[in-house]
Order: sequence, then C-alpha cells, then structure tokens
Amino acid sequence: MAHGFAQLGEEVDLTIVGNTGDDLELHGLHISPDLDTVMYTLAGLANPDTGWGVRDETWSTRTMLDRYGEHTWFALGDRDLATHIVRTARLRAGTRLTDVTTALCEALAIPGRLLPMSDDEVRTKVLAADGWLDFQEYFVRRGHRDPVLDVRFSGLASARPTPEVAAAVAAAELVVVAPSNPFVSVAPIARLPGMLETLLASKATFVGVSPIVGGRALRGPAADMLESLGAAEASAAAVARHYATEYPGLIDSFVIDDSDGGASEEIAAMGIKPLVRSIVMKSELDRRRLAQEILDFAAAGV
Amino acid sequence: MAHGFAQLGEEVDLTIVGNTGDDLELHGLHISPDLDTVMYTLAGLANPDTGWGVRDETWSTRTMLDRYGEHTWFALGDRDLATHIVRTARLRAGTRLTDVTTALCEALAIPGRLLPMSDDEVRTKVLAADGWLDFQEYFVRRGHRDPVLDVRFSGLASARPTPEVAAAVAAAELVVVAPSNPFVSVAPIARLPGMLETLLASKATFVGVSPIVGGRALRGPAADMLESLGAAEASAAAVARHYATEYPGLIDSFVIDDSDGGASEEIAAMGIKPLVRSIVMKSELDRRRLAQEILDFAAAGV
Repeated sequence: MAHGFAQLGEEVDLTIVGNTGDDLELHGLHISPDLDTVMYTLAGLANPDTGWGVRDETWSTRTMLDRYGEHTWFALGDRDLATHIVRTARLRAGTRLTDVTTALCEALAIPGRLLPMSDDEVRTKVLAADGWLDFQEYFVRRGHRDPVLDVRFSGLASARPTPEVAAAVAAAELVVVAPSNPFVSVAPIARLPGMLETLLASKATFVGVSPIVGGRALRGPAADMLESLGAAEASAAAVARHYATEYPGLIDSFVIDDSDGGASEEIAAMGIKPLVRSIVMKSELDRRRLAQEILDFAAAGV
Repeated sequence: MAHGFAQLGEEVDLTIVGNTGDDLELHGLHISPDLDTVMYTLAGLANPDTGWGVRDETWSTRTMLDRYGEHTWFALGDRDLATHIVRTARLRAGTRLTDVTTALCEALAIPGRLLPMSDDEVRTKVLAADGWLDFQEYFVRRGHRDPVLDVRFSGLASARPTPEVAAAVAAAELVVVAPSNPFVSVAPIARLPGMLETLLASKATFVGVSPIVGGRALRGPAADMLESLGAAEASAAAVARHYATEYPGLIDSFVIDDSDGGASEEIAAMGIKPLVRSIVMKSELDRRRLAQEILDFAAAGV
C-alpha cells in the first residue's frame, strides 16, 4: 500500500508509520522486519518471491551461523544483514531508532519518510495453547499455525509515539490504515499510550483498507485471529466493525474488495463510508491504482 | 606454523596462544583477526589467495554496508561475518573471549586448542609521523606503509594472561615462538603482566622461528620495524638478539633459514642454539616438515 502511494510521486507527501512490535533480537542484532520490508520495497530492493528480505540475496553468513550452532529459523540474508548490523551498531551508540531508520532510508534513497511508531521497545507476544510466544517465534518459527488465544504488547504501557509520528499525524490530510492485521500490526501502533488521542485530534480523513477479501486474509493469520480474538467470522465487515469498536469515531471510510461489495450496507450502518474497489494488489500497477483511487476518494470529501 | 604442528596429529598436544592486540571493533562487531586466521587455517577454511578470511567467500554484506556509508576498508566477507556476529553476541552476553573462541573452534572441529592471550582488552597502537593509529588502521587501511616510530599496547597494564594460557605454558614441553612480528605480534603476548615470569618458570624448551629471511620479512612490516624500532638492520640475527635482550634467558634455540646460515655463530654467541632449516613455508607440506624438524630438534634436547 505504501508503495502504491510512493509511486504517485510529488502529488503525495508520504509518511509511513511502521509497527515495531514485530522487532526481535537475533545473534545480538536488532531486527525490525516491518520497517525493513517497507524500506526494501520502496527502495526497489524487495525480494518479489518471498515478500520479505532483499532481492538477489546470498546466504553465506547463515550457512556459517548454522555451523556455529546458532538458531537460523529466522532467515537473514547477507545483504539484509548489513541493515541489522548497522542498525544495531547505531542504536548501541545511542542513536534513536527513528534517526537510524531515516539514515538507512536516505542511504537507499527511498521516496517518502519511514518512521518507527516508537523509539521505545514494544514486543508483541502471542498466547498459543502451550504458552506465550515471541511474535516471530509464532509467526516465522511456527509458521503462524497456532490458534492465537490472546495477544499482548510487552512494554506498551511505558512506550510513546515519537514526536515525529505525532507531528505527522497532526499534519496529515489523509491517514490510510493499510490492509494489515488489526490485532498484531495495527493495534501495537494505535494502542500506544496517547496515540488514539493524537489520531482523533487530527483533522485528517481516515481510510481503512480491508486485509480480508472473500473471507480470507490477503496475507498472514488475520482471518484466523478475527475468529479466535475478535469472536467474529473472518470478513471485511468484521474488520470494519473491529475498528469501529476499538477506535470509536476514528475511521471515516473503509475500502473493501469488489467481491465483498455485499458488505457495503453493513459497513455504512456502522457510520463508516464504504468504498468498493479491487484491493488485491498483485502488481506495482495495482498498488498505484488503488492508492490513486483512495486519494481521489479522500479528495472528493469521502 | 600452527598448521604445521596441527598436521602432526596425535603426536602433538597443540595449544596456540593468539595475539588479541590486533583486535578491533567495526560496525559494532568484535573482530579478532589473529585468532580467526589461525582458526580458519586449522579448520581448512582459510582463503589461500589472501592469507586472511574464509575461502569461497561472498561479499554481499559489504556491498550493502558501503551503501549505508560504513567504512569498509577492513574487508569482512559474508562467511567471515558470522564469526564476528556470534563472537560479539556471546561476549555481550558475558561469555569470556576464551570460551567464545573455544566454542567457535569446536564448531569448526579444529585440531588443537586456540587460546586468546587474554580476556582483557589490549589494543596495539602504532605511532606514525602524523600521530597514533589503531593497529588495523596502520596495517590494513594504510597498508603498513608508514614508518613506525613507536608502538604501545593500550590496556596492557591492567590485562592478564588467562588461567588457560598460564596453565598451558606451565605444562608445555615445547614452546614455539612462531615466525611473527616481534614488535606487534609477539610483544603483546610476552609483555602481558606476569607473562614473562610464567614463561621463564616453565620447564619447556623455547624455540623461536625467524620471521626474517634474507633480510626481508616473510610477511608484513617486521623488517621495517626492526630498523625503526629495533635500531638494527633487518636480519634473522637481529630478531634473535631482540628476543635475547627483551626476554633474557627465555629463548633456547632459534630457527633460521638455510640462506641465513652465516648468522649461526652470531646467534650461538648470544647463548641461543641456532637451528638452520628451510623456513619459508609455501605449502602445507612445508609447514608440516618444519614443525616435525622443530619437534625432533627439541626432542633431541636442543
């Protein structure tokens, strides 16, 4: 979604706020998977085959890490590792994650501005049948197959959105909640202390995009979580209802797929204006088209 | 030289004490170049073309580090980086360098035992015309072209040999001072507080091997340093004299090259028994042969 807006060029002054609840430390390195995926995508470096990591990657370090007995279930390629090495060194030297991220993004000349939601450590934990798991242990190591009984965000209570995030929200004309998992991707950002107030105080138009199409998640375990955590069937309307319930008065409009057009009335009844479009983004052009449609819709006053 | 003894198999209970004065921190990673060169060599992983690093190496991380504006004059390959990443993580977790080194060496199944000289930080500094330089800045970044006016070992006064090193020296029957730079490779070890006493108290036979053949260093700046720091011409005899002067009574025997055989009498006059052999090791077989010759010589009672 961010890449779609980035492709619109000068027309959009783009700021992306990334979730850092998925961050982890491996081999002593600080890894920010969500920030990196956005950064690599906007830099044109994303691996199109995996949806994560860097294209034209090599795996020499990992082979040696294996020999040293390190756990390598979280696959870090050689090019990707440079990001984690530099990030870790600069964080250890006292630089804020926000500033490290800006420096990395500038080095890769990405369009727009990528901000971590917070410089404070927040770690998403997931309750499986056998206990609490670190997010990436659940997501990557176990392949998000465990039914998720609960989610918590360690560190959230003492974390704050950065001044940069707060300023970006305050200045925004349009805030798009990308098609993401409401429970583990959107919630860590929206539930930062002070964040909802900041969002509600903004004069921006808030447009959510459904991560569910035809009852299935575009990617990842959002559908399963709607059932296990949201006590709802997996549907676009259930996501809209989740936002309307969790963040009352925030979302002005919700974009659902053509194939879910039948949910329009139900969503409208929540006080949210539905926008029905083709939201499955398979190509760069799809991304750009959807971004343009959301922009046009918002410009027309929702 | 260590590889020569390692090839002798069960006949030798091999312990190598490595210099850590050349260690450095780059990109937030702790790098121990001397330990690694020994480890990779004994593991059969050494890069035969460079004399450092790992064979069949790739350089993807470095390319990205370059993009991030990191200084990459100290070339770290992708496979090599795994060593530094693991070492750094384990040191940060509180493991001693000795134990980290043992774990790495065990993972690579090297024969013998590799010990850092100390778990305490010692950093070799070199005085060039324009000031003090970190060792690798002098050695790698500037290609050891600066005349060296002085050498010091930052941290040496409060550093100690490890218990493992002291025990190995005490138990040794033969101590071989490998053909190394006396000023920056041997001195940081020998001048550790308490080390000379430990060496002198050992009942081992001490055999030095000349790093100089025909007035030239086998590798690196030893010849230049003999002139600038040792106030001597670069020769095998000058190295023997340096050892006799710096560490009186320590060296029992000194191995010089056939081509330097004329220095035998001069060395004998220092109270050091000369051994004249072919000491230029170009092949694994050369290494093994010289190790066997030193072993035989020591066994015969020097």
